[in-house]
Parts: sequence; C-alpha cells; structure tokens
Amino acid sequence: MAEKLPTRAENYSGWYNDLVVRADLAQHSATKGSMVIKPYGFSIWEKMQRQLDDMFKETGHVNAYFPLLIPKSFMSKEADHIDGFAMECAVVTHHRLKKNPAGDGVVVDPDARLEEEYIIRPTSETIIWNTYRDWIQSYRDLPLLINQWANVMRWELRTRLFLRTAEFLWQEGHTAHETSEEAVEETLKILDVYTTFAEEFLCIPVIQGVKPEHEKFPGAVDTYCIEALMQDGKALQAGTSHFLGQNFAKAFDVTYLSRENKPEHVWATSWGVSTRLVGALIMAHSDDQGLILPPSVAPHQVVIVPLGNKPADKEVVAAASKEMIEKFKALGIRVKLDDDDKRRPGWKFAQYELQGVPVRVVIGPRDLKEGKIEVARRDTKEKMSLELEGAADKIKDLLDEIQQNIRQKALDFRAENTHDANSWEEFQDLIANKGGFVYAHWDGTTETANKIKAETKATIRCIPLDGDKEPGQCIFTGNPSAQKVIFAKAY
Amino acid sequence: MAEKLPTRAENYSGWYNDLVVRADLAQHSATKGSMVIKPYGFSIWEKMQRQLDDMFKETGHVNAYFPLLIPKSFMSKEADHIDGFAMECAVVTHHRLKKNPAGDGVVVDPDARLEEEYIIRPTSETIIWNTYRDWIQSYRDLPLLINQWANVMRWELRTRLFLRTAEFLWQEGHTAHETSEEAVEETLKILDVYTTFAEEFLCIPVIQGVKPEHEKFPGAVDTYCIEALMQDGKALQAGTSHFLGQNFAKAFDVTYLSRENKPEHVWATSWGVSTRLVGALIMAHSDDQGLILPPSVAPHQVVIVPLGNKPADKEVVAAASKEMIEKFKALGIRVKLDDDDKRRPGWKFAQYELQGVPVRVVIGPRDLKEGKIEVARRDTKEKMSLELEGAADKIKDLLDEIQQNIRQKALDFRAENTHDANSWEEFQDLIANKGGFVYAHWDGTTETANKIKAETKATIRCIPLDGDKEPGQCIFTGNPSAQKVIFAKAY
Repeated sequence: MAEKLPTRAENYSGWYNDLVVRADLAQHSATKGSMVIKPYGFSIWEKMQRQLDDMFKETGHVNAYFPLLIPKSFMSKEADHIDGFAMECAVVTHHRLKKNPAGDGVVVDPDARLEEEYIIRPTSETIIWNTYRDWIQSYRDLPLLINQWANVMRWELRTRLFLRTAEFLWQEGHTAHETSEEAVEETLKILDVYTTFAEEFLCIPVIQGVKPEHEKFPGAVDTYCIEALMQDGKALQAGTSHFLGQNFAKAFDVTYLSRENKPEHVWATSWGVSTRLVGALIMAHSDDQGLILPPSVAPHQVVIVPLGNKPADKEVVAAASKEMIEKFKALGIRVKLDDDDKRRPGWKFAQYELQGVPVRVVIGPRDLKEGKIEVARRDTKEKMSLELEGAADKIKDLLDEIQQNIRQKALDFRAENTHDANSWEEFQDLIANKGGFVYAHWDGTTETANKIKAETKATIRCIPLDGDKEPGQCIFTGNPSAQKVIFAKAY
Repeated sequence: MAEKLPTRAENYSGWYNDLVVRADLAQHSATKGSMVIKPYGFSIWEKMQRQLDDMFKETGHVNAYFPLLIPKSFMSKEADHIDGFAMECAVVTHHRLKKNPAGDGVVVDPDARLEEEYIIRPTSETIIWNTYRDWIQSYRDLPLLINQWANVMRWELRTRLFLRTAEFLWQEGHTAHETSEEAVEETLKILDVYTTFAEEFLCIPVIQGVKPEHEKFPGAVDTYCIEALMQDGKALQAGTSHFLGQNFAKAFDVTYLSRENKPEHVWATSWGVSTRLVGALIMAHSDDQGLILPPSVAPHQVVIVPLGNKPADKEVVAAASKEMIEKFKALGIRVKLDDDDKRRPGWKFAQYELQGVPVRVVIGPRDLKEGKIEVARRDTKEKMSLELEGAADKIKDLLDEIQQNIRQKALDFRAENTHDANSWEEFQDLIANKGGFVYAHWDGTTETANKIKAETKATIRCIPLDGDKEPGQCIFTGNPSAQKVIFAKAY
C-alpha cells in the first residue's frame, strides 16, 4: 500500500482524484483530455449499462447505431444547437497520412483534405434526425423509441476523471412521436426510469426538476433533470431528459402523414446519462479509507481471503473456500477468491477496503475448527463471526442490508444538507457556510440567476417537480416568485 | 411489400445489398463510408456481443476502455504497423468551429489548430501498449487479459454494408504475457473461442489456419484466422488472432521484472471480430426469399400472427395468443406478437420471411376450435399443424432442430464446395468454374502467391492448422511445398 488518501475534510477534491486512481478505476491518458477506464472501473460501468439497458427495453425501447462523424453543415441546422455545441469539438479535416518527406514519422497528406469537414459527435440529434426523415412517413411509423450506447466528444482540457473529460461514454435516447403530449409523457417516463435507477441501483437519492431557461439543452423546449448531492455539499446533475418540441423535425424536415392524412412535423425527445455517474457514485458514498460500493454495482460483491501457511491448514481452508464460492455462485453473488501467496492478508484487507468490496470473508484454520468464518462489511466496518453452515444465505441478506444502509445514509445526508432560505442574508450564509441544497424563491429571470451566481457561485439546479408550490418573493429582487427553486454550488 | 429480391443465382451481390436494406438491418448514411445500423440489425449484433462477452469472461478476460483518438506520432512507433494502417485514416487537426464571418453556418477556426494531430483509432495496439507501460512492472502484473468493445475507423469509400465500411464496431482483445509460449497459447485459445462461437452460435463452419507472411496483421509475428465460405463460393475472414511477439513491447518500451529479477520485454497478442460477422451471417444462410437466421441470434425466435376479424373470434384468438406468449417467455424464447390491424396477414407472412424469423405461429379461430395452431419454420418452409396443448415445448425443440439444420446445411455446402487441385490446369478450372475452397500445394513465396492472384483472383486464405500435412510440389512453380494451403476468391 502506498500512503493514505487525503481525508475528505482536508481536501475533498484531492481525495476524489487520488481515490479514482488508487482504486484502479481510471487514469489520464496520452490523449489530452481523454481518460482510460481501467477494468475495475469499467466493470462498474458495465453493471450500470446492463441495468439501464434492461430498463429501457422493458419500457419499449430498442438500440441502434449511428455514425461517429457528423457533417459540419448539420451542426448549424438547428439554431440553438450550434451555439451550445459545435464550438468546442474535434474536427476531422483530412483522411490520409503520408511518410514525412523531410524526415522521420508521418505527416498529414495535404492532398487528402476533405471537401466538407466532419466533427466527432458531441451528441447525435442532428445525424439521427437527418436519418429519421427516411424512416418516418406516416403515423404508423410512430412512435420511434431508439437508444444508442456510444462514445461522444466535447473538447475539454480542464478535466476530472469521470466528471469531465473530452471523450466520454454514454447512452442517448432519441424518440419521435405523433403529438406533443406523447413526447412530454416519454420525457417524464424516462426521468422516472433515471430516478429509479439512481435511487434503487446506485443508492443516490435525486430530485426531479426542470431546468431554468438559461440552463436548457441547446435545441430543447424543456430540459428535465435529476439532481444529486455529493458529500462536499455540491450538486451533481445525474441525468437529463429533453422535450425537443418540433425543433429538430423542422430543422431536418421530418414530417409524417397524420391520422387525418395531413403532413405534420414530428415531436421529439432526447435523454442521456454518462460515465459521469461513476464519478457521482464515488462521491456520494465513499469514505476516507476508500470506495464504498452498493452491492448492485460492485464488480465483486464478496471477496474471500483464506488464511494459514501450513500445507495441512491450506488444504482445509482451500476446500472450505471452494465450497463457499459454489454456494455464492448458486445464489447469484459475484465472488472473488484472493488466494495469492505473494501478498500478505493485511495488504489484501487494505486493498479491498480501498476498492470498496461490500463484504470480506476471512477463512482461517482456527475459526474453521470451530465451524466459523469471519465476515466484515465495508459500509459500517462491522466485523462478525458466522457459522460456516448457512453463511452464504446470511451474506446474501447482508448484501441487501448493505444496499439499504448505503441508500439510507445518502438520504439522511441529503436531509441534513437541505435548507430553506427566506432572506438574501440567510441564503448567502447557507451557501457560504453550509453548502447543500438551498430552497429559495427566485423571480424567474436569467438576469437575477446570473447575479446570484456571480455573488455566491450558487446556480439554480432545477425547479423541482414535487414539493412546496407556494408563491413568494425572490430572495434577491423581492419580485414575485411562483415557487421555491433549488440552488447549490455544482459540479 | 415492394418488388422481389434479385435471386442469388442471377445477382448475388445485388441480392445481398437489397436484402440488408429491405430486411431493415442497416443503411448508408449521410457520412460518407459510414452506415446506420438499424434496430433489427443491431439486435443481431447485440446477441453476438453478449455471447462473445460471456465467452471472453469465462476464459478470464475483463473489459476496459481506451481513448478514441491516438496521437499521430504513436502510429509510426511500430515500423510495420504504420505501413499497414496509418495511411487511410480520419485525421483530427482542429478543436473548434466558429461562425462563418463571411456568411451562414460555421467554419473551422484556424486559431484552433492542434499542436499534434490525432487520428481516430483504426485499431488500438499503439495507445494500449503506451498505457500498459504504466501497468506492468513485474511478472506479478502478468498476464493482462483485456478486451475492449469499440468503434474504429479505416477510411473506405467503396463500401458494402457490414462487410466494408469506414466506421465499424468490433471487439479488440489485447493481452500481455511473461513468455512467448504463454502468448501463443492465448492466441490459439481465442482462435478456439472464435471457432466455437462461429460454428455453434452462428452456424457457420470455419477453417482455422495461419495467414501467409504477406497477409499478416501489420506488426504481428503470426496471424491466425478463421475462414468461412459464403454461398457464392467466396471466402470470408471471420476473425483473426495475432501473436505479436515483443514488437509492441519494444516499440513502447514495456518491460517487466522477471521471476529471476531481470528486465524483459513483454509478449503480446491481439484479436478481434467485428460487425462484419453480421454480413457473414446473412451471406452464409439466407435464401432468395430473405434472411434465414439461426434461432441463437434471431431478434425474435417466434412470431405469432393472430387471424380473425369478427370481435368474438378476435377475443378467443387474443386469449390463446396471450397464453402462448407466457409459455414461450417461461421457456426463455424470444417471442413477438404481431396483432397490428393495419396490415394483412399475407403482408406479415412475407415480412417475417424476409426478416428471417425462425418460427411463425398462426393462431386462427377455425384451427383453435379444433385445439390446433399452424406452425411454419423459416429454414425449410415446412408447415405443420400442432395441438395447442404442449405446442410451446414442441416449438422449443423445433428451434433446436432449426439451429442444427442451418448448421448442417452450411457444413454440407462447404463439403460440396471444397476441392483439391493437383495441377495448375485443375486449379484454374476450379477457381474459374466452381469457386469454393481449393486445397493446393504452394511453394511458400509471396511472389508465387501474387502471380496466382494476378491470374485467377484467388488468394491464400490460410495454411490450415488441421488436415493433410503431406508435402508436395507447388501447382504453379513445381517447387517444394510443405503442405497444401487453402485458396479462394474472397471478400
């Protein structure tokens, strides 16, 4: 083991950066702004993918794949979209290299300049709606409920692993509908899918809301989001679902013959979550000793560490370990055996603590003589001695308990770090000294939101869908406000 | 239904192109050289992915993700690699667009030129071995058994859907080992995984072999492959597994401390299969009426088409359909119900024939009164009347039978289209008039292979690992030959 992690209290951001690297989740790469997702980190993403993919399919969606490269001219077809997206992006201008005539290596072949440049997709609305034009003729072709798992790229040089990188992995849903109502319904259905996924699977409680005008997705009529709270009191947008109205259908001329046999523009939604969620997962639950992973997403839910050096002991312990592994597998539990002789048990304990394996089982010759094993849970660090007989079933229950405990802890944290501000002084004090979610009245203007941000660094995370709808007066201007909105400093 | 497909006999390549589009598998896109994989086609790829991924994991591999963009200088570090790959590729030269100062739209911002250009990965050996340098210190870190699911790009303008496109989807395995023997063993283990996958899951019999020197992967010591035969008598390379020796370890300076505490270069393999396999699947099994899909990869294994227009009939038929669906689902069978009133049954029959659904179940009021349903299998077009009671179990068996029949048919086809040529005349005649795999002696030189190709268009597909190892004389030069090799015209 290398030196300890910084503590969250002394340096939250240093703690996060170190933890991601030391727990073998990801690292920076030779490609500026892009990360390498290491096997342990990728395994977490795979669990998320599988779960989301199942949920999308249960709600009637299918997967497809659209091109990585988007013709440059497509980006300027939807007026807001270009302002929001096309500016910082990777541009492909040539299609050939050649040997350097003046020396070593290769150079770009000037004769291979493309007639029209391509950009690497920052998001795929444009190429997808250009394709939907061929797919949609009449109301019989609707709804189209399509998702894509893909890599996307937005040029970023100030990066943080998982949270902000130039290239990232995500899913992007793109649906087409007959009516506005149906498209809004889809937008909200997906917001519910994301909410269930975040709360049940990732144990991260979220607030559903709609973004203020100035925080909308470029090209959307309304952007809905789920907002989560991290342990440093900052908010993180964990997923967005956009009602796009007819904006992209108009930009790409996608019409359908209605049931009344009239040509109409199609209504659209798009929605996505990304590898950013791995960052959210880490920041929501982990502690100063390392990762804390909900069993649902943990690459290994249980690790078995056998003890004993004498050959006779080793044999007995190995047999007991093997038997346990079979029981775990039969129960659908992901188990890892670490019987590597090259590492000491103490090193292993620290390593699996750092990597957040929910349950550690130690099988030693002395315990075994009494028919017992030692079990430690990562979330509470509690240790217990269990009868070997029936231990696998008890550990299965324990995994459920850990999942619930991690969820409850995050819920309690959010409750403790959510406040109402009824005056500008109170608001400033809360944001500066307590952090967390602050509910406050706002007059609905971008101007006021910008001023509040300039003075406090807090932004409007969302106008919450549920909760107190009572009108009041803006904490900053005193102008009328329809309902309280949520402010926070944010990632 | 639109007009009929061309027949395979009159225009095999037109048949293939039409079938891919009309069966809703894929289409060309606005991005030159890139395709859109439509939901029905993507679903086939997903089944392949899931199966392969399970097989990789069972053999100890894990997934990770490396950057899409590769610094240009990396491509010239391995001498053979650059010649083979870097030339026709997408080059990213800028990172920003700006509004066109002279009019509409956007232009590339000349101020945002990158210091070093990036290329979009044509394959990832270079960026991965550059990363492995940090991951590997000692023999304890080996073997590294990593796979990546990714999109890659090789600039191609003469494209064919699935078979050759600029962007395609694939998996690429990249492993690192202590010894040459262990790396060769891994190379062959994966060749076996690919073989089992192709033969069992895709019903495509393949021949395992090694590529002649001039057909090797650029940077490999040996390239192993599996070669399949298509219905037009042309060969298709269905997967490759490369023993890379220490070439990339040397190019990227990746060493490990051995068990004897000495620094040594690491030994490597890489291996991949791609969405090209969807093309192989279509060409291996389908007929003039459309796709024939093995049940293992079919998006829907069974389609239920209910008949009857009278409300009372409809009700009875709907109830029976619902019951059948539940039974199919309980048996793990992927079933689709098509009760869409907007289409006639005849249209549906033709559609599912075109799309290759292995089993069609027709539930009609008249049959139902006698407790029967009509079942048609796609592969043989045979129709049968089954007792409703117990039908689901029988159909489960039928799906197995279909899988076997499709496999057997492909095996028989290959047997009928594999010949030995013992003279140059015989060889020319076979290649020109019969096609298929031709076993013949070859003197082992690239020069002879090139001359044979120039005269007949046939290439050496592989030096087969199994089979007749008897030496002889080259059919072209009469020089000594160690064993017969396989020639064919190829995709």
